[in-house]
Amino acid sequence: MDAHLLTAREAAGLLATGGLTSEALVADCLDRIAAEEPRIGAFVYLDPQLALAQARAADARGRPGCLHGLPVGVKDILDTADMPTARGSALFEGRRPTLDAACVAALRRAGAVILGKTVTTELAYSSPGRTRNPRDPSRTPGGSSSGSAAAVAAAMVPAALGSQTAGSLIRPASYCGVVGYKPSHGLIRLDGVSPIAPTSLDTLGILARAAADLPLLAEALGIPMGPAAGGDGGPGAALRVGVCQTEAWTAAAPESRAAVLEAADRLSRGGARVGEEGERFDGLGEAQREVMAFEATRAFSSLLPKERERLSPQFRDLLAKGEATPPSAYAQALALRDRARARLSVVFGRFDVLLTASAPGEAPEGLLSTGDSALNRIWTLLGVPCLSLPCAKGPHGLPVGVQLVGPAGADGMLLAAALFVEEVLLG
Amino acid sequence: MDAHLLTAREAAGLLATGGLTSEALVADCLDRIAAEEPRIGAFVYLDPQLALAQARAADARGRPGCLHGLPVGVKDILDTADMPTARGSALFEGRRPTLDAACVAALRRAGAVILGKTVTTELAYSSPGRTRNPRDPSRTPGGSSSGSAAAVAAAMVPAALGSQTAGSLIRPASYCGVVGYKPSHGLIRLDGVSPIAPTSLDTLGILARAAADLPLLAEALGIPMGPAAGGDGGPGAALRVGVCQTEAWTAAAPESRAAVLEAADRLSRGGARVGEEGERFDGLGEAQREVMAFEATRAFSSLLPKERERLSPQFRDLLAKGEATPPSAYAQALALRDRARARLSVVFGRFDVLLTASAPGEAPEGLLSTGDSALNRIWTLLGVPCLSLPCAKGPHGLPVGVQLVGPAGADGMLLAAALFVEEVLLG
Repeated sequence: MDAHLLTAREAAGLLATGGLTSEALVADCLDRIAAEEPRIGAFVYLDPQLALAQARAADARGRPGCLHGLPVGVKDILDTADMPTARGSALFEGRRPTLDAACVAALRRAGAVILGKTVTTELAYSSPGRTRNPRDPSRTPGGSSSGSAAAVAAAMVPAALGSQTAGSLIRPASYCGVVGYKPSHGLIRLDGVSPIAPTSLDTLGILARAAADLPLLAEALGIPMGPAAGGDGGPGAALRVGVCQTEAWTAAAPESRAAVLEAADRLSRGGARVGEEGERFDGLGEAQREVMAFEATRAFSSLLPKERERLSPQFRDLLAKGEATPPSAYAQALALRDRARARLSVVFGRFDVLLTASAPGEAPEGLLSTGDSALNRIWTLLGVPCLSLPCAKGPHGLPVGVQLVGPAGADGMLLAAALFVEEVLLG
Repeated sequence: MDAHLLTAREAAGLLATGGLTSEALVADCLDRIAAEEPRIGAFVYLDPQLALAQARAADARGRPGCLHGLPVGVKDILDTADMPTARGSALFEGRRPTLDAACVAALRRAGAVILGKTVTTELAYSSPGRTRNPRDPSRTPGGSSSGSAAAVAAAMVPAALGSQTAGSLIRPASYCGVVGYKPSHGLIRLDGVSPIAPTSLDTLGILARAAADLPLLAEALGIPMGPAAGGDGGPGAALRVGVCQTEAWTAAAPESRAAVLEAADRLSRGGARVGEEGERFDGLGEAQREVMAFEATRAFSSLLPKERERLSPQFRDLLAKGEATPPSAYAQALALRDRARARLSVVFGRFDVLLTASAPGEAPEGLLSTGDSALNRIWTLLGVPCLSLPCAKGPHGLPVGVQLVGPAGADGMLLAAALFVEEVLLG
């Protein structure tokens, strides 16, 4: 059996019922990694013996949590007590945390095997790591959750943790052709996570190969599922979908525009009530940049000059932008967000979910940039849950995702809607 | 001038108007520390040259924040990029964080001089450090914020940061005869803070020598002040004070009982409307213990056996209690808290603030225990803001505090009420 091809939910089912041992699954994933890693470069740290030891311990425990024995990749900005955590930065080279990040501890408690640490861009910002896109190694996998998205896409591991401050989960999910989920802001504790903009933006999330995997991992992470669908009849036949282009639509290439319109058409034919939502959220993309830079400058204010020299020019530019952003501009950006949230609550009276593009288009060529987060910044600033489903192909046959957006706190409704949407688009 | 005797607000006023330089104030505090530290042992790390360099930099900046040039002590569970942070634990000996804790960064942004790191009990739990009570060095200063309370009481520094998970701010404030303030739970980010029970209990707070110092430091820390007083007429003549003994009253020695009753009497004569509140919050003391142990076990789940051996027996007992607490018991404890919160909201319809004991009595003799947090656990679990004012003396002439408790999120109202109460009791 090619166990590494199982989705997280399929694997968890077999692990729970004894149809598969964790050791066999992890060994198969390690074989896959041995074959693919030289081409992809998804892991920054992987100790096969440590992974196998965790798997054997899970098999021996025989007291399964919901992730009993399931291997999960973990982005290297998350502290792990048994593996180095260098955060993609020369500044933290050789760093060995004593405690697991709260989210890593939660996965372990649910029985997961922490397979290894996946490549992150420098400090989860824009300076790329060495990971290549498994669909075309001449192209970027996206970032900052580069290794997590690539490892899941290359079937090295069924699921992985990532994070998003601008577009770091949804964009690489779209580029690599996997499912990406950014929960509502503030639902998962950030203890043991390298910060960029922890107060307003930083959000942990999940990369997997099917929408049905997400509830399992969300449960292990303790993400509250919130109220059920607000529509009449709940998700399914009556799902109300608003196609929302926003001010960022100019960044969407023809393949992303086509993917959204095609998805809208198929959802309509599949029984959803699809309409157009004209709200543009003007100014929120730039507001997100200001909030990110302002909070990053504060999070890294204690760096010494000689430590700053070890940052990339991109990260230094971010801190310089934050230095140049007065508190009044930060407050204005948050006020703009708050007014947009008020309008958004009206929008979510009309629609259960919004449908928009996940990324500008196919993954761009080259590894010097991880691509453009224009289509993600608005939603990250609004703090709403977002989900990318791989459902289309671009002109080079590479994946193109569409993005579903739900109301803040209604993560369970969004995950349920995603199952329906996935069924209609891919089933 | 004995600058070290100034309160934080007095010092900040002089620093802002040029009546005092930060260098002069810091130098005077350092002289005081040189004289008192051998007897007290409040600091675990203090580099006079580093403190003076910060002070000179503040003087040179000439762009005062609200704490411009003010020296502040910082409990050693808070990360500092320029000082070691061993968290009172052999496990973290020699640890040098790269980034400041978010609260330390906030103080620096407001212009504060981080004077040094104050002694904490091991990991902010119960195994004592070497600090002695400045009012009587044969007695404990209380804990876990032992060094912060002692340093402020001994006039080594006008204010210091501490933290509370059970009674770690209010109790040492009472024992050392200073003002202690635990904000509402969840208002200050815990990035860079050693955890015990971060989800439900851990709260940063302030130790100072006057209630009027608290708004200044709260502003620097970004603590939202919440709504104003709910009573008719606001704090002052119409302040509605409920004397609330709770189930923990059996732990209160005669001097603490007398301090509360005397304070109630004087407040009544001073114009407050004082009544009795019969709510006992039965079971919340034990519920707090279960929540603390359960969350601590999860926060420290990644420790290896050889690392656990470097913990004190007390801390190992805490983790063992957490291991033995099933998730159902944790959920029941939180449900008990939630029902008590519902009753408390009714109580706060009758009263603006509650008045109760801060600690069982005078600081106990000896340094092997930091005393009993029975009178604090209920309030910490409820997440409400608490404040201790030194207003009485016990049978040995040592300080005894009274505690004011406000509604969650109404920190500004509680701080305003404290000014009135301090004026009536000490003015």
